[in-house]
Amino acid sequence: MQASNALHAHAFSREERATIYRNMLARRDVRSQFVPDPVDDAVLARILTAAHFAPSVGFMQPWSFVLVRDPAVKQRAHEAFTQANAEAADMFEGARREAYKSLRLEGILEAPVNLCITCDRDRDGPVVLGRTHQKAMDLYSTVCAVQNLWLAARAEGLGVGWVSIFHKAAIRDILQLPERVMPVAYLCIGHVSHFLDRPELEAAGWRARLPLDQLIHFDCWDGASPSGDALKAHLREAQALATNGCPPL
Amino acid sequence: MQASNALHAHAFSREERATIYRNMLARRDVRSQFVPDPVDDAVLARILTAAHFAPSVGFMQPWSFVLVRDPAVKQRAHEAFTQANAEAADMFEGARREAYKSLRLEGILEAPVNLCITCDRDRDGPVVLGRTHQKAMDLYSTVCAVQNLWLAARAEGLGVGWVSIFHKAAIRDILQLPERVMPVAYLCIGHVSHFLDRPELEAAGWRARLPLDQLIHFDCWDGASPSGDALKAHLREAQALATNGCPPL
Repeated sequence: MQASNALHAHAFSREERATIYRNMLARRDVRSQFVPDPVDDAVLARILTAAHFAPSVGFMQPWSFVLVRDPAVKQRAHEAFTQANAEAADMFEGARREAYKSLRLEGILEAPVNLCITCDRDRDGPVVLGRTHQKAMDLYSTVCAVQNLWLAARAEGLGVGWVSIFHKAAIRDILQLPERVMPVAYLCIGHVSHFLDRPELEAAGWRARLPLDQLIHFDCWDGASPSGDALKAHLREAQALATNGCPPL
Repeated sequence: MQASNALHAHAFSREERATIYRNMLARRDVRSQFVPDPVDDAVLARILTAAHFAPSVGFMQPWSFVLVRDPAVKQRAHEAFTQANAEAADMFEGARREAYKSLRLEGILEAPVNLCITCDRDRDGPVVLGRTHQKAMDLYSTVCAVQNLWLAARAEGLGVGWVSIFHKAAIRDILQLPERVMPVAYLCIGHVSHFLDRPELEAAGWRARLPLDQLIHFDCWDGASPSGDALKAHLREAQALATNGCPPL
């Protein structure tokens, strides 16, 4: 057993932790606030580096990055979105459909940079350490890279929006991806006029933030714990702070 | 067009950005360094809150958290790993198999907390905004929550290891997950004796870090760009800094 102060030997300082939590709380999925100013190559390189230092199963680093700045390519991506989005609207009914149609769901043409983060499913050969029993682990690694990039972008003052309303085949075709390469995230990236205080869908009344303490199970699904109430009290307190943009410290 | 100083209005300060990048660079997938000290409920609540403020498709927040501290449940998870890992070793050949067997691939029993982060595929009904054309978007959202938790844990001085060498059915059975709930990440969490400077698999010679500038394509797969060389020079510089643990600023 270590002494209590040794427990904190590897922690970042309170001020540093506050910065890291604030970054996560201020990150937004941006749709409408892009401004046309170009993104500096040095800044792009930094956020791509953040992505590249994400964890990956078997250290396979399955990601590649297709950087789209050609207006003709963006135009084709926008058309692919428009078609899929019309199909999507038809899946909702009544008032929900009208609400859906009123939402802004992409910023493909306005964002100066579009970025497709892909997963090369054959990068490290057929047998990858840690992916032997869960083939999707390479896709999950790629998403870890997306989230690192997203957080770094927010720190740099850049907005990022993840557009998923596409037929995957359309994106493959537009970006000429080889068969083995899966498009995982199509991101719009750029400077923004402002960041919203709350997620856009929450502000629009589409869906509310869930109470975190109700999402916790102990030792098995629906399982309880004698010390569970103490943890849940901490969760309610931390969520209340975070909801107001405050680090839960 | 905004003035250049307005471009930086939303950026975190240089010092704050350095902290955020250092956090990403210092994060490790921990296997061997867990110490038995318990993890404080307040700290657990903070890292779970970081997870809960991850992005999610349609703001569906599909995640739940099964917190495992019961030694009997950990024991069963360890047995499920051991069986799957023996099968995995047989998929490698010759020297690679011997190298595989020498690696430490989990810390299930040593880590005081195991945490399964799951995805409820029905949480927001059958039609989820943004998931209409890519059903996996809810799983990807859950991975964003995993990565937020991982980064927050590192800032708190906690090690995290993602164990994926399981039959999914075994984890479902041990944790009694309902059919609609998918286990996405089985994590080992705890205080550590130390964090490694480099990823364990890189240090063990299993696989090297790839050169990031070779993973970039412009406008389409294998596409080039007149300004591509300038970006690649920035990428090489940023990767060199990051490899030494320095923020790429």
